[in-house]
Amino acid sequence: MIEPHSVPAVLLMLAGALTAAKLLGELAQRIGQPAVLGELVAGVLVGPSVLAAVDPSVPSIHIVAEIGIIILLFEIGLETKLKSLLSVGGTATTVALVGVALPFGLGYLVSEIFGLTDLQALVLGAALTATSVGITARVLSDLGRLQDAESQVVLGAAVIDDIVGLVILAVVTTLVAGGELTVTGVSITTLIAFGFVAAALLLGRVIVPPLFKLIDKLGDETTVAIMGVVVALYLAVAADAVGSAMIIGAFSAGLLFAPTEHAAAIEKGVVRLGHFFVPVFFVSVGAAVDVRTFADPQVLAIGGLLILVAIVGKFLAGYAPVWFKGRKAVIGVGMIPRGEVGLIFAQMGLASGVLDAGLYAALTLMVMVTTFVAPPVLKAMLGDSGARPPAGGDRPGELMSDI
Amino acid sequence: MIEPHSVPAVLLMLAGALTAAKLLGELAQRIGQPAVLGELVAGVLVGPSVLAAVDPSVPSIHIVAEIGIIILLFEIGLETKLKSLLSVGGTATTVALVGVALPFGLGYLVSEIFGLTDLQALVLGAALTATSVGITARVLSDLGRLQDAESQVVLGAAVIDDIVGLVILAVVTTLVAGGELTVTGVSITTLIAFGFVAAALLLGRVIVPPLFKLIDKLGDETTVAIMGVVVALYLAVAADAVGSAMIIGAFSAGLLFAPTEHAAAIEKGVVRLGHFFVPVFFVSVGAAVDVRTFADPQVLAIGGLLILVAIVGKFLAGYAPVWFKGRKAVIGVGMIPRGEVGLIFAQMGLASGVLDAGLYAALTLMVMVTTFVAPPVLKAMLGDSGARPPAGGDRPGELMSDI
Repeated sequence: MIEPHSVPAVLLMLAGALTAAKLLGELAQRIGQPAVLGELVAGVLVGPSVLAAVDPSVPSIHIVAEIGIIILLFEIGLETKLKSLLSVGGTATTVALVGVALPFGLGYLVSEIFGLTDLQALVLGAALTATSVGITARVLSDLGRLQDAESQVVLGAAVIDDIVGLVILAVVTTLVAGGELTVTGVSITTLIAFGFVAAALLLGRVIVPPLFKLIDKLGDETTVAIMGVVVALYLAVAADAVGSAMIIGAFSAGLLFAPTEHAAAIEKGVVRLGHFFVPVFFVSVGAAVDVRTFADPQVLAIGGLLILVAIVGKFLAGYAPVWFKGRKAVIGVGMIPRGEVGLIFAQMGLASGVLDAGLYAALTLMVMVTTFVAPPVLKAMLGDSGARPPAGGDRPGELMSDI
Repeated sequence: MIEPHSVPAVLLMLAGALTAAKLLGELAQRIGQPAVLGELVAGVLVGPSVLAAVDPSVPSIHIVAEIGIIILLFEIGLETKLKSLLSVGGTATTVALVGVALPFGLGYLVSEIFGLTDLQALVLGAALTATSVGITARVLSDLGRLQDAESQVVLGAAVIDDIVGLVILAVVTTLVAGGELTVTGVSITTLIAFGFVAAALLLGRVIVPPLFKLIDKLGDETTVAIMGVVVALYLAVAADAVGSAMIIGAFSAGLLFAPTEHAAAIEKGVVRLGHFFVPVFFVSVGAAVDVRTFADPQVLAIGGLLILVAIVGKFLAGYAPVWFKGRKAVIGVGMIPRGEVGLIFAQMGLASGVLDAGLYAALTLMVMVTTFVAPPVLKAMLGDSGARPPAGGDRPGELMSDI
């Protein structure tokens, strides 16, 4: 009855993606896991290799998913307080940088062992560097431990990792698109990414005040949120146009609005829009996993090694600040979940053709397992005293409002 | 730098569409006009024939616009109280039916004069039948006259017109898609449209209570709204699959939830999502207008005659209930704006190839002029005493919450 790729077919896919995401996201939370894990599993189930209800390669589904990442990164930027980040100081920075370098190096090594190309090694290594501030913050918040010294270090390091991860992503995106893998090429791309954020923040100082005068007149919270998303879309396109990654632009837009008095109102509205778009992104990521590749022993071997390296690399990073007096193991475990940014790497690698279906599946498996492993271990280490049951969504906006 | 139809190009179009819609929508409200008029003009300006910033034929833009209509019809359904509608009684029904028959007949006549095909005459006639409950309700609400007898009749008749218009649309859609223009064919399509609404309402009695138990557990208002939109998407696809129009399904979904205790929460959340999607629909409708066709004297002649017929047909309908003691002219003027449903007819006619660019432009012009004309005349007739300045959006959800 319904022709493939017709308007009704695409709308049915979208409805199916949202239904599966909400149901399994809710289920994940019931068993003490972040909703994003449920959404990923939902994606795998509805994807072409299992139920074939959602095809993430359909252009309109892809666009909705892309709006989802842009909104997600906008949210992360919105809640990034640059000032308080700087005050966390050397300990968090040390954990963050070692937590980037160690997994990247180990990931590169694993790739070399399996005889992968330099570009493949780069994407796999880069995907290992991210830390999901959302998932860790959520677990610590649920345990009522956010004010612990260890938690503060983990959160600070995770935010720094997000920023460093985005820059690495911009570099890798350029290289994957045919840029040169030379010191000069990498330096230029890094400069563009940092330069874009700096330029956006500087220009923003000029543009944001009159924009808010207009927004104040418009009054309505939803309009404010939509104009915020529109600015994020413009900066995402601008970042892409100057040779950086779209999410760098979306993140910059968030940073731009973060210190303003309207940040809370924008975030509230954006989180609501995000509830529609963001799950479509995670479902798309899951749907792109071809479960048949798990029958390949090499995929399982690479996946297993990546998981090992992902866990060990971040765990050891917790011990990097030797002067820190708290429980270093807590920091290490808190750094393990990869989450959103890791998935964005995986998706970019697949879309650009650098990763084949097997490597993509291995990488997604790594993100899922690291996200799955950390919450119960953290709970066991910190004790479950006074813990609140998880409720609500997995969006960073909701997480951070608890802090 | 940006390749046409690439992801950044589509995102830029979307951002442009939203920026233009919000700015001109706000401007329209400042000069006492409904926001939808500003959004339409914004569409004409950013469309291919003027600034060429937004191409409504790009598939992903089209999908976002379609989600916009579905959300809009879902909202209209949500606020349609079937019971109170029945109590408005014979007067409103008389106005509604004459207000459908007269413009349809006159429109058909105009089409015959210009030597158009039967199908073209059908689409033009059908587009003239709709009454925009949103715009009229908004103006009456702004004037503080919603409780007047005339206003109650207009609102009741407008809602009946919406339902009748949707059925006509379902019939016309089927005919345009190659169905038979016979008494049997029309009867079958009418039966399917009514049958679908009835079946959805009956099945809904079984499905909605357990669904709400689940929704109650999910708790969050946004999740509730998204599940509402998902149900609207499913019913839209189902309506299309059984040979009716997608908006019939979306409208049925709204009717389904309207009498429940969750209606207000769903509507609030859906209106917020609608603020993103619905303007994209109106901008798309405006963008599909080729302003160059207005240089063609015949387009202007047809457009002018359609406007005349549109105004006269609805105005005379106000005098149909001869027994009514109030000011019949107020009812007549209140029925004039065509709004959303008229635009949906126009868009359907263009998409199916029945209308050429000239007829589409003439029809859109008719919708814009009728929408533009009614508010100031109504204000002049009812006096401006105690009128509140218009504020907020033009979504029906917001309008009706004032009632």
